[in-house]
Amino acid sequence: MSTRLEAQFAFLDEADRLKRITRATPISDGSRRENSAEHSWHLALYALALADQAGPGVRIDRVIRMLLIHDLVEIDVGDVPIHAAQGAAHGSAEVQAAEDAAACRIFGLLPGDQGAALLALWREFEANETPDAVFAKSLDRVQPVLMNLASGGGSWTEYQVTWPQLQSRVGHKVARGAPAIWDWLQTRLRAFFPDA
Amino acid sequence: MSTRLEAQFAFLDEADRLKRITRATPISDGSRRENSAEHSWHLALYALALADQAGPGVRIDRVIRMLLIHDLVEIDVGDVPIHAAQGAAHGSAEVQAAEDAAACRIFGLLPGDQGAALLALWREFEANETPDAVFAKSLDRVQPVLMNLASGGGSWTEYQVTWPQLQSRVGHKVARGAPAIWDWLQTRLRAFFPDA
Repeated sequence: MSTRLEAQFAFLDEADRLKRITRATPISDGSRRENSAEHSWHLALYALALADQAGPGVRIDRVIRMLLIHDLVEIDVGDVPIHAAQGAAHGSAEVQAAEDAAACRIFGLLPGDQGAALLALWREFEANETPDAVFAKSLDRVQPVLMNLASGGGSWTEYQVTWPQLQSRVGHKVARGAPAIWDWLQTRLRAFFPDA
Repeated sequence: MSTRLEAQFAFLDEADRLKRITRATPISDGSRRENSAEHSWHLALYALALADQAGPGVRIDRVIRMLLIHDLVEIDVGDVPIHAAQGAAHGSAEVQAAEDAAACRIFGLLPGDQGAALLALWREFEANETPDAVFAKSLDRVQPVLMNLASGGGSWTEYQVTWPQLQSRVGHKVARGAPAIWDWLQTRLRAFFPDA
Protein backbone atom coordinates (compact mmCIF):
# COMPACT_ATOMS: atom_id res chain seq x y z
CA MET A 1 0.00 0.00 0.00
CA SER A 2 2.70 2.52 0.86
CA THR A 3 4.42 2.05 -2.54
CA ARG A 4 1.06 2.69 -4.13
CA LEU A 5 0.52 5.84 -2.07
CA GLU A 6 4.09 6.93 -2.89
CA ALA A 7 3.25 6.70 -6.62
CA GLN A 8 -0.11 8.44 -6.24
CA PHE A 9 1.44 11.36 -4.37
CA ALA A 10 4.33 11.57 -6.87
CA PHE A 11 1.70 12.07 -9.59
CA LEU A 12 -0.27 14.63 -7.55
CA ASP A 13 2.90 16.55 -6.73
CA GLU A 14 3.92 16.61 -10.41
CA ALA A 15 0.40 17.76 -11.37
CA ASP A 16 0.88 20.86 -9.19
CA ARG A 17 3.17 22.24 -11.91
CA LEU A 18 0.13 22.82 -14.14
CA LYS A 19 -0.61 25.84 -11.91
CA ARG A 20 2.44 27.50 -13.47
CA ILE A 21 1.47 26.93 -17.12
CA THR A 22 0.04 30.13 -18.56
CA ARG A 23 -2.57 30.24 -21.31
CA ALA A 24 -3.25 32.86 -24.00
CA THR A 25 -6.72 33.58 -22.57
CA PRO A 26 -7.19 36.03 -19.67
CA ILE A 27 -9.42 35.39 -16.65
CA SER A 28 -12.73 37.16 -17.09
CA ASP A 29 -11.80 40.50 -15.44
CA GLY A 30 -8.80 40.74 -17.80
CA SER A 31 -6.38 41.30 -14.88
CA ARG A 32 -4.03 38.44 -15.80
CA ARG A 33 -3.72 35.35 -17.97
CA GLU A 34 -5.42 32.17 -16.90
CA ASN A 35 -3.31 29.18 -15.87
CA SER A 36 -4.07 25.68 -17.09
CA ALA A 37 -4.97 24.29 -13.65
CA GLU A 38 -7.71 26.83 -12.96
CA HIS A 39 -8.82 26.51 -16.60
CA SER A 40 -9.23 22.74 -16.04
CA TRP A 41 -11.32 23.40 -12.93
CA HIS A 42 -13.50 25.89 -14.74
CA LEU A 43 -14.03 23.43 -17.60
CA ALA A 44 -15.06 20.64 -15.23
CA LEU A 45 -17.60 23.08 -13.78
CA TYR A 46 -18.76 23.86 -17.34
CA ALA A 47 -19.46 20.14 -17.81
CA LEU A 48 -21.42 20.05 -14.55
CA ALA A 49 -23.48 23.17 -15.31
CA LEU A 50 -24.04 22.46 -19.03
CA ALA A 51 -24.72 18.73 -18.71
CA ASP A 52 -28.17 19.10 -20.29
CA GLN A 53 -26.48 20.34 -23.48
CA ALA A 54 -24.68 17.02 -23.97
CA GLY A 55 -25.72 14.71 -26.77
CA PRO A 56 -27.16 11.20 -26.30
CA GLY A 57 -24.90 8.70 -24.60
CA VAL A 58 -22.66 11.27 -22.93
CA ARG A 59 -21.64 10.33 -19.38
CA ILE A 60 -20.95 13.62 -17.63
CA ASP A 61 -18.76 12.17 -14.89
CA ARG A 62 -16.42 10.68 -17.53
CA VAL A 63 -16.39 14.08 -19.27
CA ILE A 64 -15.44 15.72 -15.97
CA ARG A 65 -12.60 13.23 -15.47
CA MET A 66 -11.35 13.89 -19.01
CA LEU A 67 -11.39 17.64 -18.47
CA LEU A 68 -9.56 17.36 -15.14
CA ILE A 69 -6.64 15.60 -16.83
CA HIS A 70 -6.79 16.94 -20.41
CA ASP A 71 -4.10 19.60 -20.03
CA LEU A 72 -1.58 17.80 -17.79
CA VAL A 73 0.65 17.21 -20.84
CA GLU A 74 1.27 20.97 -20.89
CA ILE A 75 3.59 20.46 -17.91
CA ASP A 76 6.11 19.16 -20.47
CA VAL A 77 4.91 20.74 -23.71
CA GLY A 78 3.45 24.07 -22.59
CA ASP A 79 0.20 25.55 -23.82
CA VAL A 80 -0.04 25.75 -27.61
CA PRO A 81 -2.61 28.52 -28.30
CA ILE A 82 -5.00 27.70 -31.15
CA HIS A 83 -4.84 31.25 -32.53
CA ALA A 84 -1.03 31.72 -32.40
CA ALA A 85 0.73 32.14 -35.76
CA GLN A 86 4.22 31.72 -34.24
CA GLY A 87 5.77 28.56 -32.81
CA ALA A 88 4.64 24.95 -33.13
CA ALA A 89 1.14 24.73 -34.59
CA HIS A 90 -1.79 23.57 -32.44
CA GLY A 91 -2.71 20.05 -33.54
CA SER A 92 0.46 19.49 -35.63
CA ALA A 93 1.99 16.00 -35.73
CA GLU A 94 5.02 17.39 -33.85
CA VAL A 95 2.90 18.72 -30.99
CA GLN A 96 0.76 15.58 -30.88
CA ALA A 97 3.84 13.36 -30.56
CA ALA A 98 5.31 15.53 -27.80
CA GLU A 99 2.00 15.53 -25.93
CA ASP A 100 1.66 11.76 -26.18
CA ALA A 101 5.17 11.32 -24.76
CA ALA A 102 4.28 13.71 -21.94
CA ALA A 103 1.10 11.77 -21.20
CA CYS A 104 3.09 8.52 -21.00
CA ARG A 105 5.57 10.10 -18.57
CA ILE A 106 3.06 11.89 -16.33
CA PHE A 107 0.38 9.18 -16.09
CA GLY A 108 3.26 6.71 -15.79
CA LEU A 109 4.00 8.14 -12.34
CA LEU A 110 0.81 6.48 -11.06
CA PRO A 111 0.47 2.78 -10.16
CA GLY A 112 0.28 0.81 -13.44
CA ASP A 113 -3.48 0.14 -13.49
CA GLN A 114 -4.39 3.74 -12.74
CA GLY A 115 -1.83 5.20 -15.12
CA ALA A 116 -3.02 3.03 -18.00
CA ALA A 117 -6.66 3.99 -17.39
CA LEU A 118 -5.94 7.73 -17.34
CA LEU A 119 -3.65 7.50 -20.39
CA ALA A 120 -6.47 5.77 -22.29
CA LEU A 121 -8.94 8.45 -21.13
CA TRP A 122 -6.57 11.23 -22.24
CA ARG A 123 -6.06 9.60 -25.65
CA GLU A 124 -9.83 9.22 -26.02
CA PHE A 125 -10.20 12.97 -25.40
CA GLU A 126 -7.49 13.76 -27.94
CA ALA A 127 -8.98 11.46 -30.62
CA ASN A 128 -12.28 13.40 -30.32
CA GLU A 129 -14.45 10.57 -31.60
CA THR A 130 -16.54 9.19 -28.73
CA PRO A 131 -19.60 11.17 -27.54
CA ASP A 132 -17.84 11.92 -24.23
CA ALA A 133 -14.72 13.26 -25.98
CA VAL A 134 -16.69 15.30 -28.52
CA PHE A 135 -18.65 17.04 -25.74
CA ALA A 136 -15.53 17.57 -23.63
CA LYS A 137 -13.65 19.04 -26.59
CA SER A 138 -16.54 21.37 -27.41
CA LEU A 139 -16.47 22.75 -23.85
CA ASP A 140 -12.69 23.23 -24.12
CA ARG A 141 -13.44 25.52 -27.10
CA VAL A 142 -16.41 27.28 -25.48
CA GLN A 143 -14.79 28.39 -22.24
CA PRO A 144 -12.11 30.64 -23.83
CA VAL A 145 -14.85 32.31 -25.91
CA LEU A 146 -16.61 33.30 -22.70
CA MET A 147 -13.32 34.49 -21.14
CA ASN A 148 -12.54 36.62 -24.22
CA LEU A 149 -16.07 38.05 -24.32
CA ALA A 150 -15.93 38.94 -20.60
CA SER A 151 -12.47 40.50 -20.74
CA GLY A 152 -13.07 42.58 -23.87
CA GLY A 153 -11.28 40.60 -26.57
CA GLY A 154 -8.45 38.69 -24.87
CA SER A 155 -6.55 36.39 -27.21
CA TRP A 156 -8.71 37.43 -30.22
CA THR A 157 -7.28 40.94 -29.97
CA GLU A 158 -3.75 39.73 -29.32
CA TYR A 159 -3.76 37.40 -32.33
CA GLN A 160 -6.04 39.55 -34.54
CA VAL A 161 -8.46 36.68 -35.02
CA THR A 162 -11.00 37.00 -37.85
CA TRP A 163 -14.52 35.57 -37.90
CA PRO A 164 -13.65 32.87 -40.49
CA GLN A 165 -10.68 31.84 -38.29
CA LEU A 166 -12.90 31.67 -35.19
CA GLN A 167 -15.46 29.62 -37.08
CA SER A 168 -12.90 27.10 -38.32
CA ARG A 169 -10.84 26.83 -35.10
CA VAL A 170 -13.66 27.08 -32.56
CA GLY A 171 -17.13 27.18 -34.09
CA HIS A 172 -16.97 23.85 -35.88
CA LYS A 173 -15.94 21.93 -32.75
CA VAL A 174 -18.51 23.68 -30.54
CA ALA A 175 -21.27 23.17 -33.11
CA ARG A 176 -20.40 19.48 -33.32
CA GLY A 177 -20.54 18.78 -29.57
CA ALA A 178 -22.94 21.44 -28.30
CA PRO A 179 -24.86 23.02 -31.21
CA ALA A 180 -27.33 25.01 -29.09
CA ILE A 181 -24.43 26.68 -27.28
CA TRP A 182 -22.85 27.77 -30.56
CA ASP A 183 -26.18 29.20 -31.75
CA TRP A 184 -26.54 31.08 -28.48
CA LEU A 185 -22.98 32.41 -28.65
CA GLN A 186 -23.18 33.73 -32.21
CA THR A 187 -25.47 36.63 -31.28
CA ARG A 188 -23.03 37.68 -28.55
CA LEU A 189 -20.04 37.32 -30.86
CA ARG A 190 -21.36 40.07 -33.17
CA ALA A 191 -20.04 42.66 -30.72
CA PHE A 192 -16.49 41.55 -31.66
CA PHE A 193 -17.02 40.05 -35.11
CA PRO A 194 -19.49 42.19 -37.11
CA ASP A 195 -19.66 39.50 -39.83
CA ALA A 196 -20.74 36.79 -37.32
CA MET B 1 -33.65 26.78 -23.63
CA SER B 2 -31.95 30.15 -24.08
CA THR B 3 -33.11 31.37 -20.64
CA ARG B 4 -31.65 28.18 -19.20
CA LEU B 5 -28.33 28.74 -21.02
CA GLU B 6 -28.39 32.38 -19.87
CA ALA B 7 -28.62 31.18 -16.23
CA GLN B 8 -25.96 28.48 -16.67
CA PHE B 9 -23.48 30.95 -18.16
CA ALA B 10 -24.27 33.54 -15.48
CA PHE B 11 -23.23 30.93 -12.90
CA LEU B 12 -20.09 29.94 -14.84
CA ASP B 13 -19.10 33.58 -15.27
CA GLU B 14 -19.58 34.25 -11.54
CA ALA B 15 -17.53 31.12 -10.72
CA ASP B 16 -14.57 32.64 -12.58
CA ARG B 17 -14.09 34.98 -9.59
CA LEU B 18 -12.81 32.04 -7.53
CA LYS B 19 -9.55 32.35 -9.54
CA ARG B 20 -8.95 35.62 -7.64
CA ILE B 21 -9.46 34.21 -4.14
CA THR B 22 -6.08 33.61 -2.51
CA ARG B 23 -5.42 30.91 0.06
CA ALA B 24 -2.91 30.73 2.91
CA THR B 25 -1.13 27.75 1.32
CA PRO B 26 1.55 28.23 -1.36
CA ILE B 27 1.78 26.21 -4.57
CA SER B 28 4.38 23.49 -4.19
CA ASP B 29 7.41 25.44 -5.48
CA GLY B 30 6.62 28.18 -2.92
CA SER B 31 6.66 30.91 -5.60
CA ARG B 32 3.21 32.28 -4.79
CA ARG B 33 0.01 31.52 -2.87
CA GLU B 34 -2.47 29.10 -4.34
CA ASN B 35 -5.86 30.37 -5.49
CA SER B 36 -9.08 28.56 -4.64
CA ALA B 37 -9.91 27.62 -8.24
CA GLU B 38 -6.66 25.76 -8.89
CA HIS B 39 -6.90 24.28 -5.36
CA SER B 40 -10.34 22.90 -6.27
CA TRP B 41 -8.91 21.37 -9.46
CA HIS B 42 -6.02 19.81 -7.58
CA LEU B 43 -8.41 18.36 -4.99
CA ALA B 44 -10.63 16.81 -7.66
CA LEU B 45 -7.48 15.19 -9.05
CA TYR B 46 -6.65 13.99 -5.51
CA ALA B 47 -10.03 12.23 -5.42
CA LEU B 48 -9.32 10.62 -8.80
CA ALA B 49 -5.80 9.45 -7.90
CA LEU B 50 -6.58 8.41 -4.31
CA ALA B 51 -9.93 6.72 -5.01
CA ASP B 52 -8.69 3.40 -3.63
CA GLN B 53 -8.22 5.08 -0.23
CA ALA B 54 -11.93 5.82 0.07
CA GLY B 55 -14.03 3.92 2.58
CA PRO B 56 -16.94 1.61 1.70
CA GLY B 57 -19.87 3.23 -0.07
CA VAL B 58 -17.93 6.23 -1.35
CA ARG B 59 -18.88 7.27 -4.89
CA ILE B 60 -15.82 9.01 -6.28
CA ASP B 61 -17.65 10.93 -9.00
CA ARG B 62 -19.90 12.51 -6.35
CA VAL B 63 -16.79 13.33 -4.30
CA ILE B 64 -15.27 14.99 -7.37
CA ARG B 65 -18.43 17.05 -7.91
CA MET B 66 -18.39 18.11 -4.26
CA LEU B 67 -14.77 19.19 -4.46
CA LEU B 68 -15.33 21.15 -7.67
CA ILE B 69 -17.97 23.31 -5.96
CA HIS B 70 -16.88 23.21 -2.30
CA ASP B 71 -15.06 26.57 -2.25
CA LEU B 72 -17.37 28.66 -4.48
CA VAL B 73 -18.77 30.36 -1.35
CA GLU B 74 -15.35 32.00 -0.92
CA ILE B 75 -16.30 34.35 -3.77
CA ASP B 76 -18.43 36.16 -1.19
CA VAL B 77 -16.79 35.17 2.10
CA GLY B 78 -13.10 34.80 1.17
CA ASP B 79 -10.85 31.99 2.32
CA VAL B 80 -10.84 31.48 6.09
CA PRO B 81 -7.49 29.75 6.85
CA ILE B 82 -7.80 26.98 9.42
CA HIS B 83 -4.55 28.02 11.14
CA ALA B 84 -5.19 31.79 11.28
CA ALA B 85 -5.52 33.32 14.78
CA GLN B 86 -6.81 36.67 13.46
CA GLY B 87 -10.18 37.39 11.85
CA ALA B 88 -13.31 35.25 11.77
CA ALA B 89 -12.61 31.72 12.99
CA HIS B 90 -12.75 28.81 10.57
CA GLY B 91 -15.92 26.82 11.29
CA SER B 92 -17.48 29.50 13.53
CA ALA B 93 -21.26 29.97 13.41
CA GLU B 94 -20.70 33.42 11.89
CA VAL B 95 -18.62 32.04 9.02
CA GLN B 96 -21.02 29.13 8.49
CA ALA B 97 -24.00 31.48 8.18
CA ALA B 98 -22.16 33.74 5.74
CA GLU B 99 -21.08 30.74 3.66
CA ASP B 100 -24.61 29.35 3.54
CA ALA B 101 -25.95 32.69 2.34
CA ALA B 102 -23.21 32.76 -0.32
CA ALA B 103 -24.12 29.25 -1.45
CA CYS B 104 -27.78 30.27 -1.80
CA ARG B 105 -26.83 33.30 -3.89
CA ILE B 106 -24.25 31.58 -6.13
CA PHE B 107 -26.06 28.28 -6.80
CA GLY B 108 -29.24 30.36 -7.12
CA LEU B 109 -27.84 31.79 -10.37
CA LEU B 110 -28.43 28.39 -12.00
CA PRO B 111 -31.79 27.10 -13.25
CA GLY B 112 -33.85 26.08 -10.19
CA ASP B 113 -33.43 22.30 -10.45
CA GLN B 114 -29.66 22.51 -10.92
CA GLY B 115 -29.16 25.15 -8.27
CA ALA B 116 -31.09 23.14 -5.68
CA ALA B 117 -29.08 19.98 -6.44
CA LEU B 118 -25.72 21.73 -6.11
CA LEU B 119 -26.80 23.59 -2.96
CA ALA B 120 -27.76 20.24 -1.41
CA LEU B 121 -24.43 18.73 -2.48
CA TRP B 122 -22.52 21.67 -0.97
CA ARG B 123 -24.47 21.41 2.31
CA GLU B 124 -23.76 17.67 2.40
CA PHE B 125 -20.04 18.43 2.08
CA GLU B 126 -20.22 21.00 4.87
CA ALA B 127 -22.17 18.69 7.20
CA ASN B 128 -19.37 16.12 6.88
CA GLU B 129 -21.53 13.13 7.75
CA THR B 130 -22.06 10.99 4.64
CA PRO B 131 -19.22 8.73 3.44
CA ASP B 132 -18.77 10.91 0.33
CA ALA B 133 -18.51 14.10 2.38
CA VAL B 134 -16.16 12.58 4.96
CA PHE B 135 -13.75 11.44 2.23
CA ALA B 136 -13.99 14.76 0.38
CA LYS B 137 -13.33 16.70 3.59
CA SER B 138 -10.32 14.52 4.42
CA LEU B 139 -8.79 15.28 1.01
CA ASP B 140 -9.43 18.99 1.56
CA ARG B 141 -7.24 18.67 4.67
CA VAL B 142 -4.58 16.46 3.03
CA GLN B 143 -3.76 18.62 0.02
CA PRO B 144 -2.49 21.67 1.97
CA VAL B 145 -0.25 19.33 4.01
CA LEU B 146 1.43 18.20 0.79
CA MET B 147 1.75 21.81 -0.43
CA ASN B 148 3.33 22.89 2.86
CA LEU B 149 5.70 19.91 2.85
CA ALA B 150 6.76 20.60 -0.75
CA SER B 151 7.26 24.34 -0.25
CA GLY B 152 9.21 24.07 3.00
CA GLY B 153 6.62 24.99 5.61
CA GLY B 154 4.10 27.31 3.95
CA SER B 155 1.20 28.28 6.19
CA TRP B 156 2.62 26.25 9.13
CA THR B 157 5.58 28.63 9.29
CA GLU B 158 3.45 31.72 8.76
CA TYR B 159 1.01 30.79 11.54
CA GLN B 160 3.58 29.02 13.80
CA VAL B 161 1.51 25.86 13.86
CA THR B 162 2.35 23.28 16.53
CA TRP B 163 1.99 19.51 16.24
CA PRO B 164 -1.02 19.36 18.61
CA GLN B 165 -2.70 22.09 16.53
CA LEU B 166 -2.02 20.20 13.30
CA GLN B 167 -3.40 17.02 14.82
CA SER B 168 -6.61 18.63 15.99
CA ARG B 169 -7.24 20.81 12.90
CA VAL B 170 -6.02 18.41 10.22
CA GLY B 171 -5.05 15.00 11.51
CA HIS B 172 -8.39 14.05 13.02
CA LYS B 173 -10.31 14.78 9.81
CA VAL B 174 -7.76 13.01 7.60
CA ALA B 175 -7.63 10.00 9.92
CA ARG B 176 -11.42 9.79 9.86
CA GLY B 177 -11.80 9.77 6.06
CA ALA B 178 -8.50 8.34 4.88
CA PRO B 179 -6.62 6.69 7.79
CA ALA B 180 -3.86 5.08 5.69
CA ILE B 181 -2.99 8.48 4.23
CA TRP B 182 -2.61 10.00 7.70
CA ASP B 183 -0.37 7.10 8.78
CA TRP B 184 1.76 7.59 5.67
CA LEU B 185 2.00 11.34 6.20
CA GLN B 186 3.08 11.19 9.83
CA THR B 187 6.57 9.90 9.01
CA ARG B 188 7.07 12.79 6.58
CA LEU B 189 5.71 15.33 9.03
CA ARG B 190 8.56 14.63 11.47
CA ALA B 191 10.81 16.85 9.33
CA PHE B 192 8.68 19.84 10.41
CA PHE B 193 7.17 18.60 13.67
CA PRO B 194 9.79 16.66 15.69
CA ASP B 195 7.09 15.50 18.12
CA ALA B 196 4.98 13.93 15.32
